[in-house]
Amino acid sequence: MLGTLLYGERDVRVEDVPRPVLQEPTDAILRVVAACVCGSDLWPYRGIDPVRRPRPMGHEYVGVVEETGAAVSLIRPGQFVVGSFFASDNTCEICAAGYQSRCVHAVGVGGAQAEYLRVPLADGTLVATAEPPDADVIPSLLAASDVLGTGWFGAAAAEAGPGKTVAVVGDGAVGLLAVLAAGQMGAERIIAMSGHPDRQELAREFGATDIVRERGDDGVAAVRELTGGLGAHSVVEAVGTQASMLQGIGCTRPGGHMGYVGVPHGVQLPGEQLFFAEIHLLGGPAPVRRFLPELMGLILQRKIDPGKVFTLELPLGEAVDAYRAMDERRTIKALLRP
Amino acid sequence: MLGTLLYGERDVRVEDVPRPVLQEPTDAILRVVAACVCGSDLWPYRGIDPVRRPRPMGHEYVGVVEETGAAVSLIRPGQFVVGSFFASDNTCEICAAGYQSRCVHAVGVGGAQAEYLRVPLADGTLVATAEPPDADVIPSLLAASDVLGTGWFGAAAAEAGPGKTVAVVGDGAVGLLAVLAAGQMGAERIIAMSGHPDRQELAREFGATDIVRERGDDGVAAVRELTGGLGAHSVVEAVGTQASMLQGIGCTRPGGHMGYVGVPHGVQLPGEQLFFAEIHLLGGPAPVRRFLPELMGLILQRKIDPGKVFTLELPLGEAVDAYRAMDERRTIKALLRP
Repeated sequence: MLGTLLYGERDVRVEDVPRPVLQEPTDAILRVVAACVCGSDLWPYRGIDPVRRPRPMGHEYVGVVEETGAAVSLIRPGQFVVGSFFASDNTCEICAAGYQSRCVHAVGVGGAQAEYLRVPLADGTLVATAEPPDADVIPSLLAASDVLGTGWFGAAAAEAGPGKTVAVVGDGAVGLLAVLAAGQMGAERIIAMSGHPDRQELAREFGATDIVRERGDDGVAAVRELTGGLGAHSVVEAVGTQASMLQGIGCTRPGGHMGYVGVPHGVQLPGEQLFFAEIHLLGGPAPVRRFLPELMGLILQRKIDPGKVFTLELPLGEAVDAYRAMDERRTIKALLRP
Repeated sequence: MLGTLLYGERDVRVEDVPRPVLQEPTDAILRVVAACVCGSDLWPYRGIDPVRRPRPMGHEYVGVVEETGAAVSLIRPGQFVVGSFFASDNTCEICAAGYQSRCVHAVGVGGAQAEYLRVPLADGTLVATAEPPDADVIPSLLAASDVLGTGWFGAAAAEAGPGKTVAVVGDGAVGLLAVLAAGQMGAERIIAMSGHPDRQELAREFGATDIVRERGDDGVAAVRELTGGLGAHSVVEAVGTQASMLQGIGCTRPGGHMGYVGVPHGVQLPGEQLFFAEIHLLGGPAPVRRFLPELMGLILQRKIDPGKVFTLELPLGEAVDAYRAMDERRTIKALLRP
């Protein structure tokens, strides 16, 4: 079958690779219907995360169950399913508390930019639709698999809600979907921090009430000016750099909440600055599984359309072009169809 | 009047200094009934925080109102009052949300190790008792002014409560009172991390169910072993060093809460480690004013006795000995009587 491998910096290839097989009785094999390129795939693609051996790429997926292991009882062959990038048993104490990405049996799902995919802990990880979904909602269901779930977690961690002013640092797909999430959670005012006109437009479409173009200290000053000098109640950080983390902290009012979902690279948070900021912090790999039933429901009822972040769609065989377009920021997010 | 000044490293003196006078119409002048030496006073005393000019010391106090400014209406001369180390208006949006230590008009209160003290924003900062308290509760009311309020905030920030396992890093007075706070909040199990027998004993008296003597990675391993490998639901960090912060983070289960109230010194939190720990963090200077009415009530009803942390009591004139005893860890906390 076709699969996408990263060999090294900016060296991604679609090749003929072995089709995955059941390894554990809790596994399922999916025929991938759609996958995509994640912002976090760009870290190794750009050589920032080292690549020591060819690495199967992709961790966002929707598909049809092809085969299940003997211990799988909730998921059945033929079902259309959405999963997330961490497989989880969804029954342990950590899962029960809503942190499935840190399940005591958590294991990463990889190699989704391919024709077939093995998903461990299928019963805990996958959520099936009642019937095969219409073609037009496939991109949005795919978004639920990571980028929407991650933006949603960011907004939830930031305690976005009625009466709150929410600021979002980062205008990638996750940041844009954090704007959508904050709107769905009833936020009164949503400030998207973005310097790119096309992304500002999508942010407005997703519910942003204000745009702040400035970054760093100027961005913090602009958010403070919009919030009576106090800062936002809720801030979502969706980049993962030192500058974006400090920008997020600076935008949060004392006692406010910051959710950070950009995977940190080279970040060191100064303890004293954080202490005197006196804000709530919560971040980490999003427990997408917690949100999947609700998000899939909103999508299937056509109440939200997160699939709009896919501004490029290519056949799997052209994955190389998808990476290039993401890397050069010519597209917000690229969808791949096997 | 007598007042305590820090001139430089380990050079603290009690001297004749000018008696404070009203400077703003919102001020009050107190006759100090009791003050004390704070663990945070030891940072400049030990030369870790630089001292550039003689610094009036002390920020924990109970006293009797001597005089009030023209704009003070809630607090009256003759009342016995407890205050906190940050003066706050207690009316702004940040105060209303419970973060009085970050009040938009917040200003530090200093020079409490003296016979008289000026307290800014008296109406917002001070809480009066209905009648003069009995002598035996003075130490506990003094503790409410900072060290109990800070331990309480740590436990509240860690979301200590029924069904929770709480671990406390640090066996200074704040850590010990975080143990007491966790017990009052209904925690099921309270792990005090302490290597000192006298402090372990007080921790048990305050409600600790388990003692962990190990520190660092060994301490983390011990807490994990006590919690089925998962870590504590709630952790209070009450030291402020890199090692204690990482110990606290390591002891917290995914999705759990850490409250950190030790003033950080040289702390840099590694972003990636924090991200994958996936814990809630809240810390900062404790908004003691939020808790004062409740804490004073518990003390006056003799339901808690936080004054037990004062294992040394000296006249103000012997403050030098109080600093020495704290520095050499010969006492948990030293009370001073003008």
